[in-house]
Amino acid sequence: MIVAPKVAAFMPPRRILMGPGPSDIYPQVLAAQSRPTVGHLDPLFVGMMDELKSLIQYAFQTRNEMTVAISAPGSAGMEACFVNLVERGDKVIVCRNGVFGDRMRQNVERIGGQVILVDNTWGEPVNVDDVAAALKAHPDAKFVAFVHAETSTGALSDAKALCALAKSHGCLTIVDAVTSLGGSELLVDEWGIDAIYSGSQKCLSCVPGLSPVSFSVAAVAKLTSRQTPVQSWFLDQSLVMGYWSGEGKRSYHHTAPVNALYALHESLRLLADAGLEQAWQRHIVMHQQLKVGLQQLGLSFVVAENCRLPQLNTVYIPDGVNDAQVRKVLLERYNLEIGAGLGELAGKAWRIGLMGYGARAENVALCLKALEDVLNEQRN
Amino acid sequence: MIVAPKVAAFMPPRRILMGPGPSDIYPQVLAAQSRPTVGHLDPLFVGMMDELKSLIQYAFQTRNEMTVAISAPGSAGMEACFVNLVERGDKVIVCRNGVFGDRMRQNVERIGGQVILVDNTWGEPVNVDDVAAALKAHPDAKFVAFVHAETSTGALSDAKALCALAKSHGCLTIVDAVTSLGGSELLVDEWGIDAIYSGSQKCLSCVPGLSPVSFSVAAVAKLTSRQTPVQSWFLDQSLVMGYWSGEGKRSYHHTAPVNALYALHESLRLLADAGLEQAWQRHIVMHQQLKVGLQQLGLSFVVAENCRLPQLNTVYIPDGVNDAQVRKVLLERYNLEIGAGLGELAGKAWRIGLMGYGARAENVALCLKALEDVLNEQRN
Repeated sequence: MIVAPKVAAFMPPRRILMGPGPSDIYPQVLAAQSRPTVGHLDPLFVGMMDELKSLIQYAFQTRNEMTVAISAPGSAGMEACFVNLVERGDKVIVCRNGVFGDRMRQNVERIGGQVILVDNTWGEPVNVDDVAAALKAHPDAKFVAFVHAETSTGALSDAKALCALAKSHGCLTIVDAVTSLGGSELLVDEWGIDAIYSGSQKCLSCVPGLSPVSFSVAAVAKLTSRQTPVQSWFLDQSLVMGYWSGEGKRSYHHTAPVNALYALHESLRLLADAGLEQAWQRHIVMHQQLKVGLQQLGLSFVVAENCRLPQLNTVYIPDGVNDAQVRKVLLERYNLEIGAGLGELAGKAWRIGLMGYGARAENVALCLKALEDVLNEQRN
Repeated sequence: MIVAPKVAAFMPPRRILMGPGPSDIYPQVLAAQSRPTVGHLDPLFVGMMDELKSLIQYAFQTRNEMTVAISAPGSAGMEACFVNLVERGDKVIVCRNGVFGDRMRQNVERIGGQVILVDNTWGEPVNVDDVAAALKAHPDAKFVAFVHAETSTGALSDAKALCALAKSHGCLTIVDAVTSLGGSELLVDEWGIDAIYSGSQKCLSCVPGLSPVSFSVAAVAKLTSRQTPVQSWFLDQSLVMGYWSGEGKRSYHHTAPVNALYALHESLRLLADAGLEQAWQRHIVMHQQLKVGLQQLGLSFVVAENCRLPQLNTVYIPDGVNDAQVRKVLLERYNLEIGAGLGELAGKAWRIGLMGYGARAENVALCLKALEDVLNEQRN
């Protein structure tokens, strides 16, 4: 027998999470998560799932019947949207202005779909005219896929305009709302989004590990009229529908992550109580406070003001400042986490999150004072 | 705007979970899960992940370097094993003696692999001679896949003999240990298992939602020498290796389910403290107590004694007894959940779990007395 390792209980400190996610969790969400586990087919749990569905619908502003939480992180939500809708040979216009647009490309390629890339500069939104040109050049395209809020850069794209454009060319839209849900205006039905996914660990301030997803009637029609089976069994939403359907007996697909779903229920309930529009507004107000302070410290934003995400503030690292050292001191001395740059921006920028419960005056104040102190030390 | 639903906080009762999983959770695990969330790239979290890896290795009794927890339930762990190893056209011998063997078949088919089914009667173990005959008839088979502990029937198969047989024919093995890990003898390295997956919510008594997985050196060699990319981005273990690797900088793949991993760390730590062999023995002792009582109630087992899982007791529902009504009364009056039959055994059997923390004298006593009372009411 291999002998048992001697391991002590893990006692994490209280960090202040101002990176790109996970964000600060509501205390009520952590409490909800540790309530007693019930069976995933327990009638009480099924009742909670019905509530959860209506709460996800509210957050997305949709009446889509097929609205669920995928039992896995946002990247599985992304994959769920692509594998259920795109079939081998389908042409997909993929907009790439950061890491997550490129991940969409990889998803389409692994399905055997045909990718038409629309590339835009990192830090800028998706260019609607470029997408229009791609649609004109590829009248046989079936999907337009884009990231609403690029977590790698902090840029917000015009989802409303992109969806209207896609629709006018008969295309379905697949939208990444991982960082936008709960943080920026997002109106799934009004804007005509066909498939959308998000993550629990950003502006919902829930524990990481779940991905809210919603499919329009048109998306469901595409799914149910597929010529080929969905390549993933776990993510096949035609199988999951039986479990999330509000009518009659729930059928077993996989064991739901019961306690994580308690947490999501609680975080969405808090969002609904506060009000979605109030939450969007709060992110803007906190961003304004942070912005003024960061500019006073001489830091400049990667993204132009008119398309900047309030919940994800990407600023250039000043010349002569040691990226890793600053983040290390912030973490070790202040228990404050800010995010490193990702992809093209690695080593060049920091990503400062103000997400959900983390978008608070005390976080803004701490971040500004701690950054000021550490930058002054670096400059001396 | 769609208006916010009015939803109260969800306050689940304390159920006693004696179904096929989720099982009763250790109180310490629920407590661990609600500790403060830290970032998934935080050095303290990375240290916890290193410990977690060694704990999973201990539970599986393996030194496999590629030993991780998939950030999704056991069915995603199953899919991870198949999509990483099996390529289009590969011939896979799939043993089917219950629901989960059939799910393996579906996984192989969705990859485009060629399935050779070895069917055995539900409630019986996989027949080693039948597998030998299949291997003889298909010398070009590359994999043998089977379920160690069939959760739908309660039958234990001889993993050691099946792996030795597969190896003698040059096949890699893919083994479902969802219900066996922590509950029944399982020696991954000694038996020569190449790819194995389990679930957090059975004999580990952790919250549902994670899937421990381990790949042998031979399995990793197959993965790294693939001719085609893994069809799933989320489950591509060649991408995940960078995050779980103990050496140097962790690379970002997806946001780890931080709090669920705290819970898994704690449950495996408790298992390591108690000792694996002691845990296996405890399941046998509790099964013996339950067995005597169930037989006194006139209930008979679906599975023969020599291949019966102590942690999952499948008994026939007596004639004239209302299945749904009995389970409803147990749940509503006693807060006791037992499992319904699944697949061929739906409406014909109950599945009584004694898993991990749930394999306790108080659970056995409650179950026997409550069942006695309810069956007496039904018979009067």
